[in-house]
Amino acid sequence: MPNLELHPDRLLPVDPDTRAIARQLYGTIKDLPIISPHGHTDPEWFATNANFGNAAELLLHPDHYVFRMLYSQGVPLAALGIGNPAADPRESWRLFAERYHLFRGTPSRMWLDWVFAEVFGMGVQLGAATSDLYFDTITEMLATQGFRPRALFERYNIEVIATTESPLDSLEHHATIRASGWQGRVITAYRPDPVIDPEFEGFQANLDALSALTGEDCRSWQGYLAAHRRRRAFFAEMGATSTDHGHPTAQTANLTAAESEALFAKVSSGRFTPAEAELFRAQMVTEMAAMSLDDGLVMQLHPGSFRNHNAGLFTALGRDKGADIPTRTDYVHALKPLLDRFGNEAGLSLILFTLDESAYARELAPLAGHYPCLKLGPAWWFHDSPEGMRRFREMTTETAGFYNTVGFNDDTRAFLSIPARHDVARRVDCAFLARLVAEHRIEDWEAAELAQDLTYNLAKAAYRL
Amino acid sequence: MPNLELHPDRLLPVDPDTRAIARQLYGTIKDLPIISPHGHTDPEWFATNANFGNAAELLLHPDHYVFRMLYSQGVPLAALGIGNPAADPRESWRLFAERYHLFRGTPSRMWLDWVFAEVFGMGVQLGAATSDLYFDTITEMLATQGFRPRALFERYNIEVIATTESPLDSLEHHATIRASGWQGRVITAYRPDPVIDPEFEGFQANLDALSALTGEDCRSWQGYLAAHRRRRAFFAEMGATSTDHGHPTAQTANLTAAESEALFAKVSSGRFTPAEAELFRAQMVTEMAAMSLDDGLVMQLHPGSFRNHNAGLFTALGRDKGADIPTRTDYVHALKPLLDRFGNEAGLSLILFTLDESAYARELAPLAGHYPCLKLGPAWWFHDSPEGMRRFREMTTETAGFYNTVGFNDDTRAFLSIPARHDVARRVDCAFLARLVAEHRIEDWEAAELAQDLTYNLAKAAYRL
Amino acid sequence: MPNLELHPDRLLPVDPDTRAIARQLYGTIKDLPIISPHGHTDPEWFATNANFGNAAELLLHPDHYVFRMLYSQGVPLAALGIGNPAADPRESWRLFAERYHLFRGTPSRMWLDWVFAEVFGMGVQLGAATSDLYFDTITEMLATQGFRPRALFERYNIEVIATTESPLDSLEHHATIRASGWQGRVITAYRPDPVIDPEFEGFQANLDALSALTGEDCRSWQGYLAAHRRRRAFFAEMGATSTDHGHPTAQTANLTAAESEALFAKVSSGRFTPAEAELFRAQMVTEMAAMSLDDGLVMQLHPGSFRNHNAGLFTALGRDKGADIPTRTDYVHALKPLLDRFGNEAGLSLILFTLDESAYARELAPLAGHYPCLKLGPAWWFHDSPEGMRRFREMTTETAGFYNTVGFNDDTRAFLSIPARHDVARRVDCAFLARLVAEHRIEDWEAAELAQDLTYNLAKAAYRL
Repeated sequence: MPNLELHPDRLLPVDPDTRAIARQLYGTIKDLPIISPHGHTDPEWFATNANFGNAAELLLHPDHYVFRMLYSQGVPLAALGIGNPAADPRESWRLFAERYHLFRGTPSRMWLDWVFAEVFGMGVQLGAATSDLYFDTITEMLATQGFRPRALFERYNIEVIATTESPLDSLEHHATIRASGWQGRVITAYRPDPVIDPEFEGFQANLDALSALTGEDCRSWQGYLAAHRRRRAFFAEMGATSTDHGHPTAQTANLTAAESEALFAKVSSGRFTPAEAELFRAQMVTEMAAMSLDDGLVMQLHPGSFRNHNAGLFTALGRDKGADIPTRTDYVHALKPLLDRFGNEAGLSLILFTLDESAYARELAPLAGHYPCLKLGPAWWFHDSPEGMRRFREMTTETAGFYNTVGFNDDTRAFLSIPARHDVARRVDCAFLARLVAEHRIEDWEAAELAQDLTYNLAKAAYRL
Repeated sequence: MPNLELHPDRLLPVDPDTRAIARQLYGTIKDLPIISPHGHTDPEWFATNANFGNAAELLLHPDHYVFRMLYSQGVPLAALGIGNPAADPRESWRLFAERYHLFRGTPSRMWLDWVFAEVFGMGVQLGAATSDLYFDTITEMLATQGFRPRALFERYNIEVIATTESPLDSLEHHATIRASGWQGRVITAYRPDPVIDPEFEGFQANLDALSALTGEDCRSWQGYLAAHRRRRAFFAEMGATSTDHGHPTAQTANLTAAESEALFAKVSSGRFTPAEAELFRAQMVTEMAAMSLDDGLVMQLHPGSFRNHNAGLFTALGRDKGADIPTRTDYVHALKPLLDRFGNEAGLSLILFTLDESAYARELAPLAGHYPCLKLGPAWWFHDSPEGMRRFREMTTETAGFYNTVGFNDDTRAFLSIPARHDVARRVDCAFLARLVAEHRIEDWEAAELAQDLTYNLAKAAYRL
Repeated sequence: MPNLELHPDRLLPVDPDTRAIARQLYGTIKDLPIISPHGHTDPEWFATNANFGNAAELLLHPDHYVFRMLYSQGVPLAALGIGNPAADPRESWRLFAERYHLFRGTPSRMWLDWVFAEVFGMGVQLGAATSDLYFDTITEMLATQGFRPRALFERYNIEVIATTESPLDSLEHHATIRASGWQGRVITAYRPDPVIDPEFEGFQANLDALSALTGEDCRSWQGYLAAHRRRRAFFAEMGATSTDHGHPTAQTANLTAAESEALFAKVSSGRFTPAEAELFRAQMVTEMAAMSLDDGLVMQLHPGSFRNHNAGLFTALGRDKGADIPTRTDYVHALKPLLDRFGNEAGLSLILFTLDESAYARELAPLAGHYPCLKLGPAWWFHDSPEGMRRFREMTTETAGFYNTVGFNDDTRAFLSIPARHDVARRVDCAFLARLVAEHRIEDWEAAELAQDLTYNLAKAAYRL
């Protein structure tokens, strides 16, 4: 069986002089605490501090990067245990292990190898022959004290991590964490899609639940807005410093109060066209911006995913089954209504993400390089990868600079791999900075400052942490 | 006159250590047989095994890459002998030779230099001063035994080559090849555009010809489908393992039988709108997928070319005169109807190509990295070049991996340059793999396996050869 | 304070062998005269040869690259002195100096450092501590003889520079320059947007002014066209060799004379829809092409900028305040009407620019690599940067070659930085050529020829200078 070894110079530039610069830079920031201002870990983990289950349950079932690749190569999701509790986790794991070569050249491979080597001390590569060894070793370790969520959180040197919750969430786990006396900083973020998107599953029931939760009448426009304000205040009280909006497009709107009210009457009645749903989401981005100016929550916009593209899979297994596909995304026209109203407010902070890299140099960097309220989020999702991050820097820096970006987001629920993901970003950023130094475009001391900023300072500042 | 020498390290990375890795990898695969699963060579060459004509006739007249560049710089096509049999081939060749500097930095230059040096043994660069030397040397060699099509096929170490024929083709040349006892494997591929695209020149007559050929009534929807089935079966019998679809867009449809029948009635009547033509093509991709599930032919979709963009040239000289221009191409919405019906069928294989590189990371890799029926074809046409291939790997690998790609296609009728084209792909792939090794993203033994797969195994498997 | 030193190898490739090739190439072209065929310097400078004002007035106020970045980070434009003559220039300069780190990794940083070091002899970096030193040194030097416009023009080794004027401009400054006996070649270019774009501020008044200036009745279609012809002739007489068109899109049209006349009646009446304005602009590109065929002026098309995107800023301060944002731009369909009419005219020369890099490989290179009348302008505006130029070469060369491009444009009114901008282009081109040599894709002597062509010959030829 081939050895598993993480090379200390991985992802650093191949040219020896440039690699030396990058290695030196990386050495100055590799041990900085992790700031994780946006992600999808489960607060219950940190609230109960219960041990994780077996290897398949922790590393395979929730990782859509992993099971989408296996599915693309003909492995049924049921055999992997997705939506199928009857599957034997050891057998599911074996299907994965036998096909580990499929991940060559992907970020999943790097994240997983880090977890295997650094967290579980594996010294041989995953494969058919080592499937059981892996499954048993990992599963056994997970049952021990040192592999509980809080222990890993501390071992991982996480300074702060944000989870993402619906306005309908009681935040009970966050309350439990606070009450526990544990010092780990786990905060929430306000993700109102389930009560903002008229096409979200259960939208009507969600409005009722929001009414019940807030005591506001969420069947009236003013009551609905008031309910948002209440929940945002509660989230902020529980540590939230940001909101997040995962709309199909980046469309915003700037309707009059009367128009908004009439539109809300339609969508809340359940009788609306797709265009009206889109317009309502668009208007709500602008309403959220208005509230952010009041309560200081930083906004994040994550547009451009065609969710649940695979109709058969969605019917059978529901959302988030690896079938979200990016689409071409416009920002210049889409954001104008919001920017016409709030674009010059330095007090507003709207962090833009994209799944459409063609927008980096053409739209996003020019927008963020002009409007005081805009910043650029890091390379996201399919682009959260060495090549993706490199393209992000190459296509945004010359127009937006470094200081209109916000550091790294891991955006993951794959808790075990969080340090690996931040480490990839740190390495790729150091590689990029090293090239700028080697090409005499910035000085070495400037690169050293930038490495600190990109790794730590920008995330803290941008997310008001 | 400057020497012509092909450097053994051409296209390998400049960093010495990375180059050494690439050179080593390349050494292990450079002599593997050529699998050419998609292209446009003429089966008559191999059927008759007649000698090729002169240098201009073989290397200039049919090569739209070459004459489009000359035309862009003001050389009339007639002077090059395109659509003008009266042109003196030696003079046409001279117009090309004098302007050989125009091709600096283009793949044509590399392909041609390989042909000149390796096939014809030229030791000086093409230019005004060597124009006649080239013309005479090549033309004389072409008249000899060793330069006949079958001899070159064998010298080129081609294991299998696919041509591309219309359903209306009798496949007589393929029959002749089979009957000849010659061992070269030349197969066909089913390219039904002339009988599927209502806007194709002669579509109405083509339907009649299809009726005559199959004995089916191609003026009825069922008869038309039956005719396709018959011709597909005949093509498969003659070795075909694939179909190919060169539509303006990637649009698919999933109409009911009744809707399809009504639509066919319109397009077969000759009275239809452009939107109806598009919808019919879209539905036919899905119908072809249904048939592929039955007969096992692999599908190829080559969308996104605005054919015959130059109206004047099209009127004067007809199609394929170097005036096809790529357009922005959507896949996410366009493919959904087909994918809703067949996306989860692991038995279907649909290979996607693009002329719009912005779709690589945004749409194509995510689609192929999820749907079991989808694979990604290699960098195509204008992107069949070192930079284009590099971008293809950089933008698809992290999401789709290597194993959702299908190896290289030369896609050419420029028979002489086929080994040069495969060689460029092999070099660029080895360069990419070497970088991954040098950056410690994969192990050297993995790169060695991948080099074999990308060069040989994936093409054989994906095309069921 | 950190030293300011311009490294002689800046922007050259990091690999030592490739850098040596690049350095050698660069050495052969770095001192060639500057050809500046398109830009926005003010002819009054050269006419009056008056001294420039203070540092802020010369280097900060007119540089939208600089003040947009400062604005994006919350610095009010008024504090910078933009639209606010009351601002203390020393204090404005300090706001800039304190934030000089924002420009790390941007081309502005490189251009400015060159100006600081090479023109003003500064030896320490700009920053809070050196703000006054910079302000005073620069302001004092600007008051001296050697820093007058004509002296700098000569020191900069500018062979020819084109300014850009409206048809309504009297060209008095150009006349003054000619009459002065000074040998510097300053020519104009015909930029008719103010009298072609019905949505341009003051369009109606501009038509009247054009009538007054030409004696033609610009309220009639024929008179309007005749006025253009007269002004074009006058511009040509004053040295112009080109026209320039800055439309929102690349749309062209090919209307009949009657349709054009009817459309002109609408737009000249002031009662028209946005679609009619767009169609009129589109038709006028084609009309300009017709005139170019007669008078030989080279056309430039600069489409795709959403001008004055920031509504609040536009209302307060007017156009050109750093709030122009690129948009997705189609060329394939948009140019077809013009190309259907004139595409095969080798006598026409239409230079295409883009702010949408996704069009480089997909649309622009294939178009320019086919149509005799088309050439590709260099990387423009937000892409006038090392990474932008590199992408331009990587994405256009393989299909369009080098000889369908036109050398470099500085496109700037930041006169002081013109040599720095050309120097960046020269370095990036040499870096690209060096890679092609090191990868054995072209020979070293070919790279040397290309370096001369890209730096000097292509610009002279393409702009008929």
